[in-house]
Amino acid sequence: MAATVISYPGNERLARALADRLSLEVTLLETRHFPDDELYFRVEGDVKGKTVVVACTLDRPNEKIVGLQLLASLLRDLGAAKIMLVAPYLAYMRQDRAFHGGEGVSARYVARLLSAAFDGLATVDPHLHRIAALSDVYSIPTRLVHAAPAISDWIVRNVRSPLVIGPDGESAQWAEDIARRAACPAVVLEKERLGDRDVRVSLPNPDSLTGRTPVLVDDIISTARTMIAAIDHLRAMSAPTPICIGVHAIFAGDAYELLRTGGPARIVTCNTIEHETNGIDVRPQIRDTVAGLI
Amino acid sequence: MAATVISYPGNERLARALADRLSLEVTLLETRHFPDDELYFRVEGDVKGKTVVVACTLDRPNEKIVGLQLLASLLRDLGAAKIMLVAPYLAYMRQDRAFHGGEGVSARYVARLLSAAFDGLATVDPHLHRIAALSDVYSIPTRLVHAAPAISDWIVRNVRSPLVIGPDGESAQWAEDIARRAACPAVVLEKERLGDRDVRVSLPNPDSLTGRTPVLVDDIISTARTMIAAIDHLRAMSAPTPICIGVHAIFAGDAYELLRTGGPARIVTCNTIEHETNGIDVRPQIRDTVAGLI
Repeated sequence: MAATVISYPGNERLARALADRLSLEVTLLETRHFPDDELYFRVEGDVKGKTVVVACTLDRPNEKIVGLQLLASLLRDLGAAKIMLVAPYLAYMRQDRAFHGGEGVSARYVARLLSAAFDGLATVDPHLHRIAALSDVYSIPTRLVHAAPAISDWIVRNVRSPLVIGPDGESAQWAEDIARRAACPAVVLEKERLGDRDVRVSLPNPDSLTGRTPVLVDDIISTARTMIAAIDHLRAMSAPTPICIGVHAIFAGDAYELLRTGGPARIVTCNTIEHETNGIDVRPQIRDTVAGLI
Repeated sequence: MAATVISYPGNERLARALADRLSLEVTLLETRHFPDDELYFRVEGDVKGKTVVVACTLDRPNEKIVGLQLLASLLRDLGAAKIMLVAPYLAYMRQDRAFHGGEGVSARYVARLLSAAFDGLATVDPHLHRIAALSDVYSIPTRLVHAAPAISDWIVRNVRSPLVIGPDGESAQWAEDIARRAACPAVVLEKERLGDRDVRVSLPNPDSLTGRTPVLVDDIISTARTMIAAIDHLRAMSAPTPICIGVHAIFAGDAYELLRTGGPARIVTCNTIEHETNGIDVRPQIRDTVAGLI
């Protein structure tokens, strides 16, 4: 079936990378806000009978979610046969349980909205913790890209004698996978979260640091408080200056400045969310995964 | 059936007005943004088996639409029996046709989203032009509140010898209804829209102004360019300084400052969107309409 790629505003480089590697055309999308803030879309090409791949990473997700719902409706009206969402960062996955009475499971609600709008989803390392698999909440076919191989490659090429450090139990399996691929050891910090921006960590086995360059790895760098707490803890132990690696560079508010001030040797992220720290290219893997969806 | 009212953030006065007049409780809603901009909701009360009236006017609608979708899902999970949306201003109704190839009918798409989330909708004077009735696009029961009686009352109480002026053909029926109720004449300007912020108008029958105070009435004041063009046109004709009345006080960007600078005698709006120009209270009519929905 014929296929084409559309960039949701801000995702032009991702859309271009997908189109170039898959030998597809990019269909242009005219978008703007009306003065009253309502969104306007116009598809500048023929999508009738085609599979449309919509590129839109979902950091700062609220307006994007409603925009994607409107765009998907428009594409259906224009006769698109299938509409696939490529969202390298998938939002709302951390709200995966009602922690207190009266709370909801937003991960599930957003999954329902996107499943109603799209026929398939590809994403990179979604935050799967209490929800074990995307198929538990998404009713459409989903495909996962794993960033671990690209991160391991980067570590092998750039870090001498690394020790991969996962910041908390949620990252254990993931940090261990990266370390295994990079043929180096891994440890996991003990973490206590006291609030959105207040985190304490400690290294259970200080001897593991001997002769090693600490490489902190996390899936999402949002407030960066976990990374900063880990850097502070390592400094207090007189460990070598660590390298920080994140998959998803959210950097909420002043998080990036704060993390830089924290003094890591380097901050490196994957290009699932565009940011100046993007040093690890996962678009080839996304392209291969999307090729399997269309 | 037991019923309760919930205020979406920013709609506390509307929620309180509805609850007080209907002898209902307001169920508190804890809301915030996580640092990564995701929305958090927690319902601080028991909604199980109840009809829940959610008060949320829909100016600057994008985040609110996704927030309402999440909130409605949460209320369903908590066992709400019916969920009604009271949106005094209903967004996206002006995108009621595909004007050019590749465009969509966002009014229809938003209606589908809200119909999936809610069991009923009450609103005030939605912009019904090419869509004749809300039931053409909403699949849930809808109830309309008409602002014309309250506007006519205000005119009768505040303006000597008024001439109601509708700014364009879309407002003709509506301006004529207000004038008829106020027992005064009405005229409709001829309008040409050259862009989002560029509008030209002219009065077809200048004699109609003789001995009259011009009262410009429009359903939505967004950029205010239509009002300003009308004021300028009346000034060029040496007409008395007009009064401007709008139902929905959107006032996009610097529109309010610009309109004030345009020099009308007064600017008065209905309280469908909270604004310092709110001088016409339509909440009693909303309350009566909601009473018929629950």
